[in-house]
Amino acid sequence: MNWVYISDIGAHQGEEVILKGWLYNKRSSGKLHFLLVRDGTGIIQGVMFRGDVSPEAFEEAGRLTQESSIIVTGKVRADARAPGGYELAISSVEPVQVAVNYPISLKEHGVDFLMDHRHLWLRSSRQQAILRIRSTIISTIRNFLDEQGFTLVDTPLLTPSACEGTTTLFETTYFDEKAYLSQSGQLYAEAAAMALGKVYCFGPAFRAEKSKTRRHLIEFWIVEPEVAYYEHEDNLRLQENLVSHVVQTVLEKRRPELAVLERDVSKLANVTPPFPRITYDQALAVLREQGVEKVWGDDFGAPDETKLASMYDRPLIVERYPTSAKAFYMQPDPNRPEVVLCDDMLAPEGYGEIIGGSQRIHDLALLEQRLEQHNLPREAYEWYLDLRRYGSVPHSGFGLGIERTVAWICGLEHVRETIPFPRMLYRLYP
Amino acid sequence: MNWVYISDIGAHQGEEVILKGWLYNKRSSGKLHFLLVRDGTGIIQGVMFRGDVSPEAFEEAGRLTQESSIIVTGKVRADARAPGGYELAISSVEPVQVAVNYPISLKEHGVDFLMDHRHLWLRSSRQQAILRIRSTIISTIRNFLDEQGFTLVDTPLLTPSACEGTTTLFETTYFDEKAYLSQSGQLYAEAAAMALGKVYCFGPAFRAEKSKTRRHLIEFWIVEPEVAYYEHEDNLRLQENLVSHVVQTVLEKRRPELAVLERDVSKLANVTPPFPRITYDQALAVLREQGVEKVWGDDFGAPDETKLASMYDRPLIVERYPTSAKAFYMQPDPNRPEVVLCDDMLAPEGYGEIIGGSQRIHDLALLEQRLEQHNLPREAYEWYLDLRRYGSVPHSGFGLGIERTVAWICGLEHVRETIPFPRMLYRLYP
Repeated sequence: MNWVYISDIGAHQGEEVILKGWLYNKRSSGKLHFLLVRDGTGIIQGVMFRGDVSPEAFEEAGRLTQESSIIVTGKVRADARAPGGYELAISSVEPVQVAVNYPISLKEHGVDFLMDHRHLWLRSSRQQAILRIRSTIISTIRNFLDEQGFTLVDTPLLTPSACEGTTTLFETTYFDEKAYLSQSGQLYAEAAAMALGKVYCFGPAFRAEKSKTRRHLIEFWIVEPEVAYYEHEDNLRLQENLVSHVVQTVLEKRRPELAVLERDVSKLANVTPPFPRITYDQALAVLREQGVEKVWGDDFGAPDETKLASMYDRPLIVERYPTSAKAFYMQPDPNRPEVVLCDDMLAPEGYGEIIGGSQRIHDLALLEQRLEQHNLPREAYEWYLDLRRYGSVPHSGFGLGIERTVAWICGLEHVRETIPFPRMLYRLYP
Repeated sequence: MNWVYISDIGAHQGEEVILKGWLYNKRSSGKLHFLLVRDGTGIIQGVMFRGDVSPEAFEEAGRLTQESSIIVTGKVRADARAPGGYELAISSVEPVQVAVNYPISLKEHGVDFLMDHRHLWLRSSRQQAILRIRSTIISTIRNFLDEQGFTLVDTPLLTPSACEGTTTLFETTYFDEKAYLSQSGQLYAEAAAMALGKVYCFGPAFRAEKSKTRRHLIEFWIVEPEVAYYEHEDNLRLQENLVSHVVQTVLEKRRPELAVLERDVSKLANVTPPFPRITYDQALAVLREQGVEKVWGDDFGAPDETKLASMYDRPLIVERYPTSAKAFYMQPDPNRPEVVLCDDMLAPEGYGEIIGGSQRIHDLALLEQRLEQHNLPREAYEWYLDLRRYGSVPHSGFGLGIERTVAWICGLEHVRETIPFPRMLYRLYP
């Protein structure tokens, strides 16, 4: 008799199998116990009849508590009424360890309490569903890029200098020097793109920001593709294709998890290319019509993004922002140098920016000038300038934030549930 | 006419195509130029005949320097003598930017010079080959685990406490607290395994060690699978299957890159399960026979590992080390509590430890006792102890070091070439 996972139970119909897992919930009557058993791959209802087992075994099963670890033997039978379509006719339950006073009941708890018990909260169906969708989103992104000939390049987390200023950086002592935790692998990915053509980095990034919003984490994961010889238009197309492929793959592979989250999947079905595109100027005009007071040159905030994105049924691309509002490395529009060839992709349903991207400056003199205008320390960027000295080419890339993408696809209120152990302001434990 | 990548050139035989890349090398005679063009996906030889282009174009091509960025148009033709099997009959070359005095010639440079120019060094055929193999190793590991039903769980990099002591930790200020950069996601992965059954984390880790060896980096990547209900034997089998699958997949997909590295692939072909296994006691006896002075309880060093591993043609598993030499969380052998159910996997050819794994203690009282014996702050581990309070189960896992695995498979002398931007003692730039 074999140990099987609940996710594979359909292949064992009519067989006696062993499940190794935990008791998720229990209902009992005088004659039978309904044991909801989870094993990390799914949940199944096990039914134990008083007449099928010894009186001691029936009593022992009755004393099992939530989250006790158990090894369950039983026969798999199809049952159209059961969630998942199968039920287990239990012949024996072997407790591995009985959990006493498991702190998280299936009723409601406050968020702080749940966050303090994050290591246990992960066991709830909802958190499991989110983490499985996260895992699928990440593997889908990686496989999409790998299949298109991208090379993964792991860029360093400990860096000598800042990509965009130092106020939100975590600092540490690196032997005799200062080092900072990376906020983006982009500059390194640019170097790698000049070697390997199509590359992406995919890792954690850190922002020491004293803000508490539902869209921000201190430690977050970001994928950053970068392609030599890609111009603005190529960049937008890659973004559209990637995001729509991810959404459609989650819809295909993670229906049960989306159902656990009660996600309205009809809103995800729309997410196919082409995505609507508007310029910064058009976006500004729309916001002004709606009474938002902004002047040309201002960046958009989260409420502005929500207003804009809510007008569409799929992600919105806003492109060509004012040069003055954006990072030093962005390529000016040749026809209109006061704007840059950049874009933000705004997720619908109020989820805001999930992508920021741009074509990068490839002209040495212009990049030197920008470093000066932004008061950036030239010495730290010498190696980055080298990329413009030796075989410089137009190139483009973007960063896709994983947690915001997970929040959007899962339909979550807050990014704190999108990662196993979120790091937030004053939240470093567990 | 289409922009194509060199890796796809075989599909365009007889066609006129556009390549976008860089000049890798050049030979000229009075009548023709041989231009070696690279585009990140491969290298192809382009041939330009004086008679086929204007005199100005021929002269201009003759002035092209190494690493100049160029857009090349030409006709693809099969040529059995050409590396890759194809050649390009060039009709035009458009320089994008001419590189003046590219610092890395194709001749030998010292390692410090190359490391200072790592952002450019990546463009060499050798470094490209290594990075492509690294990328394949990582995607193969991820796909192997994903296909076996593992869920990826990204564990935090900023942590409040240390897994194994604090002497080699990078510290930073996390708002009002101290935080440390993670050396392992294992403890968090254990929590996630109790929720999701089979999990893995895969991310960077940091060790502030003042050592300079060819096997150590300050910042390295590690994959750490963790499985609920897996015991020692299951753990060893998973390790064997994963490592042999990775090696065989690289052999299948990255032959040209292994050829660039002049790797003796016959040594990799052997890497199939089962791997040889010896106990710590047997290993100690072997070392003593060879004159190594060690007493029972000593851990093995790199030279010992090399001696042991060199006796076999595939990775060697050394298991059941003395409890006193290993981490606090390892499960004692029930028949012999002075050793633990752990293993190190040693790569052949002198590459040393690539895996460390163990079954974890699942008994609360024993784990509490170990924390005390190791003088670890109990408070910081309360959440970890919770995993033994609520539905504790036997479980096992391991960590596979990516850089050492890449070094071994590629046959490299030093791990510094295994990652795009290595972080080493006094090496934080670029």
